[in-house]
Amino acid sequence: MARIGFIGLGIMGLPMAVNLVRAGHDVTGFNRSPGRTARFAEQGGTAADSARAAVEGAEVVITMLPDSPDVDAVADDVLTAAGALWIDMSTIAPATARAVADRAHRSGLRALDAPVSGGEQGAVEGTLSVMVGGAADDVAAARPVLEVLGKTIVHVGPAGSGQTVKAANQLIVAGTIGLVAEALTLLRAQDVDLASAVEVLSGGLAGSAVLDRKATPMLTHEFTPGFRVDLHHKDLGIALGSAREAGVPLPLGAAVAQLMAAARTQGHGDLDHSALLLVLEQLAGLRKD
Amino acid sequence: MARIGFIGLGIMGLPMAVNLVRAGHDVTGFNRSPGRTARFAEQGGTAADSARAAVEGAEVVITMLPDSPDVDAVADDVLTAAGALWIDMSTIAPATARAVADRAHRSGLRALDAPVSGGEQGAVEGTLSVMVGGAADDVAAARPVLEVLGKTIVHVGPAGSGQTVKAANQLIVAGTIGLVAEALTLLRAQDVDLASAVEVLSGGLAGSAVLDRKATPMLTHEFTPGFRVDLHHKDLGIALGSAREAGVPLPLGAAVAQLMAAARTQGHGDLDHSALLLVLEQLAGLRKD
Amino acid sequence: MARIGFIGLGIMGLPMAVNLVRAGHDVTGFNRSPGRTARFAEQGGTAADSARAAVEGAEVVITMLPDSPDVDAVADDVLTAAGALWIDMSTIAPATARAVADRAHRSGLRALDAPVSGGEQGAVEGTLSVMVGGAADDVAAARPVLEVLGKTIVHVGPAGSGQTVKAANQLIVAGTIGLVAEALTLLRAQDVDLASAVEVLSGGLAGSAVLDRKATPMLTHEFTPGFRVDLHHKDLGIALGSAREAGVPLPLGAAVAQLMAAARTQGHGDLDHSALLLVLEQLAGLRKD
Amino acid sequence: MARIGFIGLGIMGLPMAVNLVRAGHDVTGFNRSPGRTARFAEQGGTAADSARAAVEGAEVVITMLPDSPDVDAVADDVLTAAGALWIDMSTIAPATARAVADRAHRSGLRALDAPVSGGEQGAVEGTLSVMVGGAADDVAAARPVLEVLGKTIVHVGPAGSGQTVKAANQLIVAGTIGLVAEALTLLRAQDVDLASAVEVLSGGLAGSAVLDRKATPMLTHEFTPGFRVDLHHKDLGIALGSAREAGVPLPLGAAVAQLMAAARTQGHGDLDHSALLLVLEQLAGLRKD
Repeated sequence: MARIGFIGLGIMGLPMAVNLVRAGHDVTGFNRSPGRTARFAEQGGTAADSARAAVEGAEVVITMLPDSPDVDAVADDVLTAAGALWIDMSTIAPATARAVADRAHRSGLRALDAPVSGGEQGAVEGTLSVMVGGAADDVAAARPVLEVLGKTIVHVGPAGSGQTVKAANQLIVAGTIGLVAEALTLLRAQDVDLASAVEVLSGGLAGSAVLDRKATPMLTHEFTPGFRVDLHHKDLGIALGSAREAGVPLPLGAAVAQLMAAARTQGHGDLDHSALLLVLEQLAGLRKD
Repeated sequence: MARIGFIGLGIMGLPMAVNLVRAGHDVTGFNRSPGRTARFAEQGGTAADSARAAVEGAEVVITMLPDSPDVDAVADDVLTAAGALWIDMSTIAPATARAVADRAHRSGLRALDAPVSGGEQGAVEGTLSVMVGGAADDVAAARPVLEVLGKTIVHVGPAGSGQTVKAANQLIVAGTIGLVAEALTLLRAQDVDLASAVEVLSGGLAGSAVLDRKATPMLTHEFTPGFRVDLHHKDLGIALGSAREAGVPLPLGAAVAQLMAAARTQGHGDLDHSALLLVLEQLAGLRKD
Repeated sequence: MARIGFIGLGIMGLPMAVNLVRAGHDVTGFNRSPGRTARFAEQGGTAADSARAAVEGAEVVITMLPDSPDVDAVADDVLTAAGALWIDMSTIAPATARAVADRAHRSGLRALDAPVSGGEQGAVEGTLSVMVGGAADDVAAARPVLEVLGKTIVHVGPAGSGQTVKAANQLIVAGTIGLVAEALTLLRAQDVDLASAVEVLSGGLAGSAVLDRKATPMLTHEFTPGFRVDLHHKDLGIALGSAREAGVPLPLGAAVAQLMAAARTQGHGDLDHSALLLVLEQLAGLRKD
Repeated sequence: MARIGFIGLGIMGLPMAVNLVRAGHDVTGFNRSPGRTARFAEQGGTAADSARAAVEGAEVVITMLPDSPDVDAVADDVLTAAGALWIDMSTIAPATARAVADRAHRSGLRALDAPVSGGEQGAVEGTLSVMVGGAADDVAAARPVLEVLGKTIVHVGPAGSGQTVKAANQLIVAGTIGLVAEALTLLRAQDVDLASAVEVLSGGLAGSAVLDRKATPMLTHEFTPGFRVDLHHKDLGIALGSAREAGVPLPLGAAVAQLMAAARTQGHGDLDHSALLLVLEQLAGLRKD
């Protein structure tokens, strides 16, 4: 069993760290807001009062933080854990992930970027999908730990690749939500029976996980997250920034990013991302608020 | 068993008509190019030398034609079959479908619009999905015939609704192809392992029938149809025209329609619609031809 | 002086026909709603009670009608005026214009498509810009008549070309309105002084006739037409349809057409086209209605 | 006359600094590549061998640098000039401009953001347009210096506003180039006479400075800059980032940014921004390279 330092005990990080404890690992956790660290201690973890304390003596460091600047902010502390394997599971910019990996190598650490999909439920149940970028040896070393957290662990390429695949994932998901929202708005405006339409659309080439899981919130207008508009807006910023850096135009990605920005600025930031439907309905004059 | 007149024995229509013959129906077929009618006769059908002859005495008339003007062109002949149930299974504009239904009712016929998805394979195997618009009684009357042709028969609303759902289907499918193409182009430009990326994307909320069935042609650049770019371009014209008529803006639909138009005008009209990837790769400077 | 039949005495057509009378031409006018024909007679024109009567004996026929189907609807009557020069000044689809010209030639008429820009004011003052498609000889023959109506008469190519240029004009104008609306919304959200910003933007490469003439309605939210959203929506349909036919993708044109469709479906159809700003402000959460 | 420190003697900065010398100011210049500093000395300026030396004792500091990080990089040096008025004329992100102004105020300097339009020619001739953000008093103090450099000096709001207006300017310019490129591609595909079409388009509501100055390079395919694609790509990144921060969706801005990114990634980065036409022509299948 490994000695693990875990930084970031939020909605995703806390259940992940707890799963590692339950799997028999020796996990020391830290979160900026101390209440979360205390909750971790209540569930069997060891509490640290700083990031540096959390990583002291760690063989593996896991970070699960909101955004690129948060990862940058703890990097100096993490890099004190010379010899450790740093697995950053935050969703951040691929360029930041590559820069972090470079710094880690120069400080004598190994590093992987390993963002996840599957949401809070996947974190609690240990069924996340993990997209891993880095060296094959390091992925092999990390696998026993990652398999506690997720059911699908895929090595997708060198440093930064995990983040690029996550960016692609968020691009496809947002776009598919947007397409389903456009389709439902068209169908609604034409007095089609929406539930029947969703049934037949789901069974063919138009079928998708988005249609399976998000049609119900869209038909009922119950947008309890799930995954929040604000976070998806952030992730589309990463995807478009990454494409910009790579010289890849994204006509559809850029268009759906404007719709997600509209959802956010119109006050739907805390709703499930399927609330993108509200923007389309408003564009079509079907609602006023 | 019903006396059926079947007009349009193309790639889709011929196997559909043959399936009706095999199910024991008395089917008289007609196609504008007589070779197709002859092939139908070889497979047990009765050949007619005009649309009017095909529908004479028919209880059910099925039309399976390329586009709105083709349906308009045979309407006068079909309307001579007073008392019949006309099932138009072509993919045409919802407005045309509604106009056809009105004319049918005034001529003493019942009418349904019943476009399909599932492609040539679905037509051959009798496993199409059928989206039916019209009166509930007429759908009930048509069901025994439709169940020979498809495995999913869904009544989605009044006249024209079947076409609107088909338009929504084609909007979502084209858009999803576009999103997957953008994602793959981004991944390729960043040296990610594409097959691994597709594996992990498929398992989560980014998963779709498009990703399941079209990732392989996209990764191998083998764009054997399947469903041709030219036809999808036509269908996006229907979707956008229908949205225009309904007062529904489609930001993503309009964007992907430009990409499909580019695929066509760049000479990829006869390739599978997943060849939309070629347009994205060219935009990204990854290919020159 | 010419014997002229003039069909379509609307907001544009009536002052144009009156200007021809004042220039000494012998003008017989017809409008479907007879009140307009009566007003023309009050201003010195000769009233006809049918399109056919209006064109009887005419050397020149001018049509100024709302849309392609309206031109189609009077074509049979106009074509009775064998030997005449038919100048269609309506804004219609280039494909319809070419078809009309073909029919005219087969019936022994010459034909030009000659749509205009410059609005009601240009029609009243005789200062329209006229974009003429057709044969050079016919343009030369039409010039004395057209110079009564406009100050800029440009022969832009063969039949249909006038309409294509008009479509391009409407594409650029709508797009520029959309860009200015986006810019003003961005500036407003950032507490920039809008009048000063417009001043400096107007003086450089961002300057345009749209910025010169439409910034004031946008800053004051006084959207008295001018040119109505509904008409511009129609014209963008022509532009996109023409591009579709020509195999030309229009990424920006398609995007702005969705915004114009939103303006219309949100109830702004009778406002000046600069009311596109309202759609952008709503997208940005700056207004609720 | 003022004692001025001038940092950044590039294509724009050098002629601006020389104009200040010629107007009688005491200007000490610095550029990272010393050849440019030497050229400034040859034209009457005082050469400094560091940014800190250039600003020593200065009443006014002007920075004219390529991008936000460059301004950040010299900030520590500029801030040693306590009491000075720092006029940053670079085109950078509004958020960076606000942060720079905050730092300046804390260090006892006054600060303005004052980006320009008008290009190299405007810099040489002293006819730039200058968009100034900051306090009114500081703008008044800067005016005598700015009037040497530009003919239009407009105070558009508080700190950062100059950059926001510049971002809006670049958004409108890129979008207008894109619209003109789409229009010309449509016209070319339809065999319209392009020069005649440009003439008539220029005279009406479709007219713009872009059409006046960029139609010729577009018609001749001679894309000598002018303003380079690479720089406009950078500026669109600023505009979209600023809109993102302000919660303003930019559907057209985002669409044209993808086209500009395509122009760059396809290898046209060093051409004039009107080379955006090449992307549209390629999308329309009119060219292969």
